[in-house]
Amino acid sequence: MKFLHSKSRLEALSDGVFAFAATLMVVNIGADTNITSFKDELPNFISFAVSFFVMMGIWKVHYNFFRRTNYIDNWIIALNMILLFTVLFYIFPVRSLLSTGFGGQRINIDEFSNIFQLYSIGFSLIFLSFCLMYFRAFKNDKNLKLLFYSRHFFIFIIVGIISFILAKFQIGLRYGVPGFVYILLGPLCYFHSVKFHKKHNLEY
Amino acid sequence: MKFLHSKSRLEALSDGVFAFAATLMVVNIGADTNITSFKDELPNFISFAVSFFVMMGIWKVHYNFFRRTNYIDNWIIALNMILLFTVLFYIFPVRSLLSTGFGGQRINIDEFSNIFQLYSIGFSLIFLSFCLMYFRAFKNDKNLKLLFYSRHFFIFIIVGIISFILAKFQIGLRYGVPGFVYILLGPLCYFHSVKFHKKHNLEY
Amino acid sequence: MKFLHSKSRLEALSDGVFAFAATLMVVNIGADTNITSFKDELPNFISFAVSFFVMMGIWKVHYNFFRRTNYIDNWIIALNMILLFTVLFYIFPVRSLLSTGFGGQRINIDEFSNIFQLYSIGFSLIFLSFCLMYFRAFKNDKNLKLLFYSRHFFIFIIVGIISFILAKFQIGLRYGVPGFVYILLGPLCYFHSVKFHKKHNLEY
Amino acid sequence: MKFLHSKSRLEALSDGVFAFAATLMVVNIGADTNITSFKDELPNFISFAVSFFVMMGIWKVHYNFFRRTNYIDNWIIALNMILLFTVLFYIFPVRSLLSTGFGGQRINIDEFSNIFQLYSIGFSLIFLSFCLMYFRAFKNDKNLKLLFYSRHFFIFIIVGIISFILAKFQIGLRYGVPGFVYILLGPLCYFHSVKFHKKHNLEY
Repeated sequence: MKFLHSKSRLEALSDGVFAFAATLMVVNIGADTNITSFKDELPNFISFAVSFFVMMGIWKVHYNFFRRTNYIDNWIIALNMILLFTVLFYIFPVRSLLSTGFGGQRINIDEFSNIFQLYSIGFSLIFLSFCLMYFRAFKNDKNLKLLFYSRHFFIFIIVGIISFILAKFQIGLRYGVPGFVYILLGPLCYFHSVKFHKKHNLEY
Repeated sequence: MKFLHSKSRLEALSDGVFAFAATLMVVNIGADTNITSFKDELPNFISFAVSFFVMMGIWKVHYNFFRRTNYIDNWIIALNMILLFTVLFYIFPVRSLLSTGFGGQRINIDEFSNIFQLYSIGFSLIFLSFCLMYFRAFKNDKNLKLLFYSRHFFIFIIVGIISFILAKFQIGLRYGVPGFVYILLGPLCYFHSVKFHKKHNLEY
Repeated sequence: MKFLHSKSRLEALSDGVFAFAATLMVVNIGADTNITSFKDELPNFISFAVSFFVMMGIWKVHYNFFRRTNYIDNWIIALNMILLFTVLFYIFPVRSLLSTGFGGQRINIDEFSNIFQLYSIGFSLIFLSFCLMYFRAFKNDKNLKLLFYSRHFFIFIIVGIISFILAKFQIGLRYGVPGFVYILLGPLCYFHSVKFHKKHNLEY
Repeated sequence: MKFLHSKSRLEALSDGVFAFAATLMVVNIGADTNITSFKDELPNFISFAVSFFVMMGIWKVHYNFFRRTNYIDNWIIALNMILLFTVLFYIFPVRSLLSTGFGGQRINIDEFSNIFQLYSIGFSLIFLSFCLMYFRAFKNDKNLKLLFYSRHFFIFIIVGIISFILAKFQIGLRYGVPGFVYILLGPLCYFHSVKFHKKHNLEY
């Protein structure tokens, strides 16, 4: 006897985590705000805004995955947990880093390298989870769109790893090359999309 | 191949954010309450009550939108995110401002002007999101009720901008004119409603 | 054109508030726990346990209401908001009061009277919300069970008010009479139930 | 007249508690993170990771229960509350204990014994809730799989109690015997599974 998986519960848990993390980010901004200090909050505002919309972006990717497939098994649940863990572990330090960054604090070249390494790992881990979730769903649904997205997010992982290596060996770090390398995502994803759709005779 | 949007997930995320923000507002009230200080909490009580019911009011407007249409696309999701962001960014400072206000702290005329400017922007942004969400839904559902609400919330934006301008140039600020201007919402919405229903031969 | 109300969203918002408030209550317990202090946490443990299960009890009453009717309108939404507000406003001070109480701090007779007054008001407000919600639902569903529960919770309000009056005039306060008066709920609800079911020929 | 229980609301409340507790665990990590201290966060990282995945493991067991049965009554709701209470009460101290543990702080043998006692009680209570929930559901559904899981989690309780006794009388505590005793879960559950399936002629 088989028991059905409940997509709605996994979504509810994930939505809960995203909603709380988004809300918690803003809490300490207003905590000791008084009237005069409100203008000084600009670096906090920008860092909160960036983290909030990054988080909502990840939520959107998560949301898209569960629109595209109804297949759920223990592997997808486990990958979803790893995704949530990575998001939670990264999002709060991201905000405080951004906040100190916009606050104008000076950092040296080694610290700069460390930051890029840490966030390249986080970036790669998040999209590794999505890549494997799509691949796992594809193995069962046999829907080519799922394979397409699995490969699409694989490009994200590769670019994250390139950024990590550049940051590790401090190649062009002074000019922000490990950051600018993410621009590669645009053309790479475009070429992959064109090739994939031609090969499998898919519509866009 | 098209994948359906999931209204329930967008609602779940939004409900999570609203529920969490409402709960967090009350937390620091009780944190260091002991028996004797309970009576001194009156300014906190009022500011919590006002922020809580303002928030629940915004939730009700949000709830009404999703009752009136089932149409969801990426634009509506993006506008919903901006709405949540504005609510989260404003609600906590609102509470602490109210709390210091009821606590009897003196503020000068420039600070008073700044407060009105900031909250007029927030007010306008929240209803701009709703106005555009209704308009986007109308473009697809072609339900005249949706156009009505889009224009209804457009009046809110206008009044918010008038309040901002009055506060900016400190016109009648000493008598609270930028605050009283919100009374205009009543007659303006009434006239709009009468005109709109007559023009399109709609029932109320 | 009428738009349907969404029971699930109101439930989701309420469940969110209950879930977060329950979770938040426990947070500061573990925050600075180290190994040696764990045993000293007994008063915190008891106060957390009492507040948690009181809260879950209120959740259960809320849950029962929405099982018994599908009727929702703006009145029920507004009453639900007032209920959530009262719960949030009371639950955190309850915990800290219990915590100081079990911590063995001495309080004088006037403070003792104030506590009973405050919590009698909270108790009455919570069940006033439920009473009116059931009555509102009864007016539309015409299901006698809903009328029964409306009157059932009306008894709770009465007992809360009696407790308030006793505490206010410090009648038997030294012996905890304003607390013991809640024992009346048992026989009063029993008599009401017997009479109501006989009068309307209802089964139990 | 009977009113139906709502499985979705009980799930929503539980998911809310799990999601929120998981999110809160990570919050204080990032709060005062600056660039240089990020590397020093390793003990925090490990303790957060362990607590997060323990919590997600308990969520999975909870999720499985509600997949396997649709039966809900007041007993199951009450047991579910006790489960949530135990999880909330234990998860935050677990994290801070782990965090001090990995931080290299020295603890003496009596404290070590106390920790094992406390966590054996928590472990047993969590699985006692699951055991009784499955048994309650079995009494109504008469599905042998539910009886199997009830007995399966009964083994967990027994092992928890053995660990408690070993820790209490400090038997082999120096070598971590009360911890290693949990390895017994593997063979015991395997034997139980084989015997149960043979006796009732069930497939795996």
